[in-house]
Amino acid sequence: MSESVTQHRAFKWRSGAISEEADRLAVEEPLEIRLGGRRFTLTMRTPGHDEELAAGFLLAEGFIDARGELGEIRRLRDAKGALDPNAIDVILNVPAAGLRERLQRNFTVSSSCGVCGKTSIEALERRIAPLTSTVAIERPALLRLPTLMREAQAGFAATGGLHAAALFSLEQANDPALVVLREDVGRHNAVDKVVGYALAHDMIPLASHVLMVSGRLSFELVQKAAAAGVSILCAVSAPSSLAVELAEELGMTLVGFLREPNFNVYAGAKRILDRP
Amino acid sequence: MSESVTQHRAFKWRSGAISEEADRLAVEEPLEIRLGGRRFTLTMRTPGHDEELAAGFLLAEGFIDARGELGEIRRLRDAKGALDPNAIDVILNVPAAGLRERLQRNFTVSSSCGVCGKTSIEALERRIAPLTSTVAIERPALLRLPTLMREAQAGFAATGGLHAAALFSLEQANDPALVVLREDVGRHNAVDKVVGYALAHDMIPLASHVLMVSGRLSFELVQKAAAAGVSILCAVSAPSSLAVELAEELGMTLVGFLREPNFNVYAGAKRILDRP
Repeated sequence: MSESVTQHRAFKWRSGAISEEADRLAVEEPLEIRLGGRRFTLTMRTPGHDEELAAGFLLAEGFIDARGELGEIRRLRDAKGALDPNAIDVILNVPAAGLRERLQRNFTVSSSCGVCGKTSIEALERRIAPLTSTVAIERPALLRLPTLMREAQAGFAATGGLHAAALFSLEQANDPALVVLREDVGRHNAVDKVVGYALAHDMIPLASHVLMVSGRLSFELVQKAAAAGVSILCAVSAPSSLAVELAEELGMTLVGFLREPNFNVYAGAKRILDRP
Repeated sequence: MSESVTQHRAFKWRSGAISEEADRLAVEEPLEIRLGGRRFTLTMRTPGHDEELAAGFLLAEGFIDARGELGEIRRLRDAKGALDPNAIDVILNVPAAGLRERLQRNFTVSSSCGVCGKTSIEALERRIAPLTSTVAIERPALLRLPTLMREAQAGFAATGGLHAAALFSLEQANDPALVVLREDVGRHNAVDKVVGYALAHDMIPLASHVLMVSGRLSFELVQKAAAAGVSILCAVSAPSSLAVELAEELGMTLVGFLREPNFNVYAGAKRILDRP
């Protein structure tokens, strides 16, 4: 059993009959991400691929822009010298002044006109480049993505409790190939891990790729995908209003309710080729 | 159409045929919560019941313990005097020193032994009382909860994109009655809104109630429910490992995969009465 799944005894009622048996649960544990030794953020995540999670989080949230800005990622040790499984320290190759400016940029919302979705989108537009990729996917290929993703979701199959994010390369519009799939109790973490994987493999920006997520699409997920250069983002379920608005503003193709034989395209329909 | 649902044109592919039509989307907008005029937190939420969201968040996260500690909740105005729909200011009836201590308590994780689920649980046990309620629910009543909840989920029916949290009173173990249901793009927000409703109606602690959520159960949701005194928490989907551990530690009854005619009980099975 992997570190992402554990067992716990549960009483199972099935049409009135009770049995006590071991059930598989998705593991949730906190991860503390430090920057140069200083506490930066804490996220509840499923253990595994923590380096990817930290790197992807920093890129997706705009604290780093390229792989070269990641110095070193190291595990922390406790007083006895044992590795701490739930803490990680990132050393950045970013000058201190530049980092301060980025921290500010990311935590500042314009106070002159109040907070609203429009403000949030404008703040992102200042740091995320428009998505101009001409990559495209044919309809039959798009409809295959949920099956390709589900086949790789070992953790969800075991627990029913893990979100997934899957990255597909699209060298040809009719032939998507699974590059990496990550699962996590937090859907944002699953996306961060995929982005971190892509960063470590020098694949950013992901201009000829499709990112697919197992759940719904929020503003936050569109933001993370756009920061990684993803121009086609698909989900099994519904997008929010602000997810659609941000996708339109950035030029992203947004597909929701992707469940064979149906799907909805909320933005950027030009990248969907309607081949039979 | 309510403020929680909006329309957006989408291309819909249905078994190969394309149509362009209006689709309903769950609204997502940021809400800035201020404490005494100072920026405190920003959450992406579905507009509506913002006062409940702010009050519930403060109680569920341990910044206030009772309704009397909530002074006033007011909307902010922009320079022209118009109400800002996405910002809210909370004045607390908590002495400054006490508030500082609570802020610290909530953002401090023990650094002596590293961060882990056990640390997180111990930190919560210091501020959340064990759940000792003897309330119980009969099996047929438990199995009716998903239907009762679904019937009230207007926003999900319209959009497929809203999480729900529903509070039921349990004056009799065989007769749960819906008290309030809230929907939100964020499941934690839906729970905060229900807790805020209960706080405003002097129902805290919720010792003779059941809280049901539409999705999965994370550590965070168990924490919020426990802070409000909920001793029976149910979900349509899977709990995480840490959700189950925290429920066990606090004495909460945790039910997952509640879908007639089946359910799993992960903790506190004594509150489920096995009547036919």
